[in-house]
Amino acid sequence: MSWFETSIMNRKGVAKGAEGARHKITIEDQGTFHYVYGPYVDPVLEVEPGAVVTVETHDAFEGKIKEEVPNPSEHLNFPFLNPQTGPIFVKGAEKGDALAVKIISIKPRGPQPVGTTCLLTEFGGLVATGDTALLNPPLPEKVKKIRVDENGVYWSDTVTLPYEPFIGTIGTAPQIEAISSLQPDYYGGNMDLPDVAPGSIIYLPVQTEGGFLYLGDCHAIQGDGELCGVALEMPATVELQVDLIKGHGNSWPQLETEDRMMFIGSARPMEDAARIAYRELVRWVAAETGQSEAEAYMLLTMCGKVRLGNMVDPKYSIGAAIEKKYLT
Amino acid sequence: MSWFETSIMNRKGVAKGAEGARHKITIEDQGTFHYVYGPYVDPVLEVEPGAVVTVETHDAFEGKIKEEVPNPSEHLNFPFLNPQTGPIFVKGAEKGDALAVKIISIKPRGPQPVGTTCLLTEFGGLVATGDTALLNPPLPEKVKKIRVDENGVYWSDTVTLPYEPFIGTIGTAPQIEAISSLQPDYYGGNMDLPDVAPGSIIYLPVQTEGGFLYLGDCHAIQGDGELCGVALEMPATVELQVDLIKGHGNSWPQLETEDRMMFIGSARPMEDAARIAYRELVRWVAAETGQSEAEAYMLLTMCGKVRLGNMVDPKYSIGAAIEKKYLT
Amino acid sequence: MSWFETSIMNRKGVAKGAEGARHKITIEDQGTFHYVYGPYVDPVLEVEPGAVVTVETHDAFEGKIKEEVPNPSEHLNFPFLNPQTGPIFVKGAEKGDALAVKIISIKPRGPQPVGTTCLLTEFGGLVATGDTALLNPPLPEKVKKIRVDENGVYWSDTVTLPYEPFIGTIGTAPQIEAISSLQPDYYGGNMDLPDVAPGSIIYLPVQTEGGFLYLGDCHAIQGDGELCGVALEMPATVELQVDLIKGHGNSWPQLETEDRMMFIGSARPMEDAARIAYRELVRWVAAETGQSEAEAYMLLTMCGKVRLGNMVDPKYSIGAAIEKKYLT
Amino acid sequence: MSWFETSIMNRKGVAKGAEGARHKITIEDQGTFHYVYGPYVDPVLEVEPGAVVTVETHDAFEGKIKEEVPNPSEHLNFPFLNPQTGPIFVKGAEKGDALAVKIISIKPRGPQPVGTTCLLTEFGGLVATGDTALLNPPLPEKVKKIRVDENGVYWSDTVTLPYEPFIGTIGTAPQIEAISSLQPDYYGGNMDLPDVAPGSIIYLPVQTEGGFLYLGDCHAIQGDGELCGVALEMPATVELQVDLIKGHGNSWPQLETEDRMMFIGSARPMEDAARIAYRELVRWVAAETGQSEAEAYMLLTMCGKVRLGNMVDPKYSIGAAIEKKYLT
Repeated sequence: MSWFETSIMNRKGVAKGAEGARHKITIEDQGTFHYVYGPYVDPVLEVEPGAVVTVETHDAFEGKIKEEVPNPSEHLNFPFLNPQTGPIFVKGAEKGDALAVKIISIKPRGPQPVGTTCLLTEFGGLVATGDTALLNPPLPEKVKKIRVDENGVYWSDTVTLPYEPFIGTIGTAPQIEAISSLQPDYYGGNMDLPDVAPGSIIYLPVQTEGGFLYLGDCHAIQGDGELCGVALEMPATVELQVDLIKGHGNSWPQLETEDRMMFIGSARPMEDAARIAYRELVRWVAAETGQSEAEAYMLLTMCGKVRLGNMVDPKYSIGAAIEKKYLT
Repeated sequence: MSWFETSIMNRKGVAKGAEGARHKITIEDQGTFHYVYGPYVDPVLEVEPGAVVTVETHDAFEGKIKEEVPNPSEHLNFPFLNPQTGPIFVKGAEKGDALAVKIISIKPRGPQPVGTTCLLTEFGGLVATGDTALLNPPLPEKVKKIRVDENGVYWSDTVTLPYEPFIGTIGTAPQIEAISSLQPDYYGGNMDLPDVAPGSIIYLPVQTEGGFLYLGDCHAIQGDGELCGVALEMPATVELQVDLIKGHGNSWPQLETEDRMMFIGSARPMEDAARIAYRELVRWVAAETGQSEAEAYMLLTMCGKVRLGNMVDPKYSIGAAIEKKYLT
Repeated sequence: MSWFETSIMNRKGVAKGAEGARHKITIEDQGTFHYVYGPYVDPVLEVEPGAVVTVETHDAFEGKIKEEVPNPSEHLNFPFLNPQTGPIFVKGAEKGDALAVKIISIKPRGPQPVGTTCLLTEFGGLVATGDTALLNPPLPEKVKKIRVDENGVYWSDTVTLPYEPFIGTIGTAPQIEAISSLQPDYYGGNMDLPDVAPGSIIYLPVQTEGGFLYLGDCHAIQGDGELCGVALEMPATVELQVDLIKGHGNSWPQLETEDRMMFIGSARPMEDAARIAYRELVRWVAAETGQSEAEAYMLLTMCGKVRLGNMVDPKYSIGAAIEKKYLT
Repeated sequence: MSWFETSIMNRKGVAKGAEGARHKITIEDQGTFHYVYGPYVDPVLEVEPGAVVTVETHDAFEGKIKEEVPNPSEHLNFPFLNPQTGPIFVKGAEKGDALAVKIISIKPRGPQPVGTTCLLTEFGGLVATGDTALLNPPLPEKVKKIRVDENGVYWSDTVTLPYEPFIGTIGTAPQIEAISSLQPDYYGGNMDLPDVAPGSIIYLPVQTEGGFLYLGDCHAIQGDGELCGVALEMPATVELQVDLIKGHGNSWPQLETEDRMMFIGSARPMEDAARIAYRELVRWVAAETGQSEAEAYMLLTMCGKVRLGNMVDPKYSIGAAIEKKYLT
């Protein structure tokens, strides 16, 4: 028996975790990509809960950084960054529900070297930015193109990193806002959290009819914090199973794996991201186990696990988790 | 000679500061109010540079808090808060320009008591919020309705505060985002900065054709920081003169008064708002006076003035200013 | 009648605001200066409440930057910076009391140009620092020596700034800690707040027997935030009147002027400094006027005034104030 | 061959990692405990590099919370918290060196239940505090006493947590400051980082002759962030091997395990702690491997690992690490 059978998705999903119809969104199907998470566009696909969808995504630069050019930012056109595939309309989804998205697989797509990272002026965790606005001179820009396959990330002659793909940006539409796909927030978005990987299920709060699922920005690998601001970006083919949890009522994204239950907060300063994630988790543990909030707060003091997603986006993202075995 | 004659608006405006046609937007003209700053709606009015526009604004609660009710948040429907009048399309405005908005007058509008303030759960500078997400119990909610006229704010039997009105929320539309009118950012928005008052000119960066000027959320008076999150909110009649500065190129709002030149930054944590405002000002002083950035940085160390707008909104707002007499 | 007669110092001081014995601490009397605020040294002077003390202070660089040298940090020996005169032992002072220090006058001392400012590597509000630790290259260092007298600060050929002197660093000793004189905190220290000027009274919480009053770091003028980290530093002669408020019980420094009552918070991020200052003020207004905390919180939302002291020290300092006329 | 043979301690230590004389500091030997990290006391022990020292530590409450009392803070006497054993004077240690401390073992000491956690007013990661100073009512205080042995932490009838002990507070003395043992900083101190565990070596920068090694505050287990502010505190017997790295020159604590090399930053806001840790690591990786800082910055973007130590102390602590296998 797989752990999926005991997941929230299987227990509470409209489709009870059963795989439904299969769909595909290619780059050509998508046609026009989106640079905001919002309700002001038409869905590219409409599905029933249970649908299995294969989605082709661009890399965060829409493939415009093809070589190790000296000034990558000259090839980019802000704010048209981080193109998103979607939105996918999920039938029956209403405000207060959650979309359950099981990530089945993520494969690199396109010619080698398929991976791109770079240093961009005024962007990154260890440089002055538009927000941390300083007078220091910038670092020089720089691009690295990297060969990636499902066996590894061929970083240099001496270093091969593991292939640990995940979805950098995924979420639903806000109710009335349309927010840059560079930003993470309560609806998901650009969380850049390595846990959003094959083998996990993410529960995204629904704000608007149909949920409007967007995704893009797959990474072949990324360290905690996405330090320079650009992970190993790659175009990808993503396979997802989408279900719907009626009235799930989570205010922030929730993520389930075989072993852990996590909530993801996004905010600045970073401690507020941690507070959001941990407060959601405290309340969930209390509700799930029947403990008081004070008891859950103390338990998580002993065994809570924190993952830093990004320290570079307009809001920082942190996941706070508990091992399921302590949920008794 | 009024100082306006030497203002940026008069020197560089398309209309050279001359008053053009007069327009009015009443509550009825507006009809549907807006709760986001974005380009996805039709303008309510189209004007030439120089236009003088009389605008009726709702209070931040759209008039729904009529009495000193015990639970004001039950009368509100998030995210439909802080209704904005507009947008006004300014002919000729293009990305890279600035709208110059001279604030001529702000008058309270409607039946007494016209002013409203309140304590709302999880909102305010001295309470836990959705971002500073804590487990402490909330404070009780509370409403105060206050009589206001152009002579004073009648706070209590013993305290009359001065009538010092300003526009809490004013700005242009982002290029592709539609952002809650509760948030301040590079385009203006909910800065809650008391300097945005009659006698000042605000220069708002244009992101999209026509600029799309929105405004609302007038305050009869407010302390620095808008401490509890709700100033003395009032419906108002605002008179503005709108001009257009081609190619002004400011990245953040700039504000000019008789004596001072200010830039306004909005960010979290608060030091980033101060850094943004001061970096803009350093660069502007250097360009204006021919000093090096290092010289301007040292000069502002001696004579810079800081105003805290809000410490309660999704981003905090700070204005950094210099007295014009030091610009030589 | 001077406003001093109604001050806390006059009403509650052990000496009732009366001037007592006169004392002087010259540079030679002091001999060894202090670079920490702590209890692990012997007082340089012992006084009764009411004492009037004339204190000679060094500038923050102990006079080591005598000329416009290209690399000022080579002349400095960290952590031996910001030398402090004192401590002064105030008889009768015990933990839970406050020292009341009325600032009578501050005069520049020594040969011209008496004022020094500079840009130092990894220090300042608009550069990467040891805490906001980035990879950007530093700005070049730079010194400006400026002539100052009691009529003005002769900044350049075209700009004369007003002489607005204040004490950058003043405070009592912690109970068991000894903290760098570069840091501000609950006991005062390096707040760099321009309000600590002639005509004001500062109430400093006492942590240890005798209070242990230290001071130094006078500035001829400074903008809000002390932007580059170094105001116009000068050696000075300071005249103070020291009194003792038994059981005053303030947790953070309090400052009184003719018109205003202020509390001063120091913390990072900057919003925490504002929260500290305003929470102290809310509670004080409530206690002083008999209003509830909720009422005081709302009143300060309308009329609170915020001053940014520093945005450059190990903790940022903010003063939150109310005009006394609203204390009814 | 153990990995210790290739550690910095073995390769560069004065004693080359060889075990020297054995020493012991019992509670009785210590007599007076310390509540600050500073140079203003006499060492309790003087050792040669290579010494193996067995140290008895108190729990963070000095054993004063013996039962599940309702108001634990009434049993505590701030600032006399987090008692530290030491300091240990290491012969030959000078400013610019590092103490290498190999943690051999940590055992619980004293009668059962040996573990204590509690909720304290105005302290913790999900409550208002003295710095994040809010008006919300506090949570009730609460104590849990927990049985602990080397096989487990017996949390409740249904949950047994693993015994994963570490040293919450360890460090050297600042040069002239004496800083509360509740605070972490560049010299170590109250980092509350679970990696400071048996099987690791921590390299602590030396500021003063002899280094002055202090330690205390052992935890039987702790989650990331030490959420409520109080891990599972226990009195312990700690076995350490102390060596000396001449001229090591690290500005912040460095930690080595079999697989990883980590640097530890402590600051507020939390992003500054992450920036410090990662900047130190970038520079160390660049120096160690001969890569440019830009290359190291990009590599860590792919494979850096972050551990949140505490989100509750006067500064937050974060460790940033790289797997040693990528250091080529």
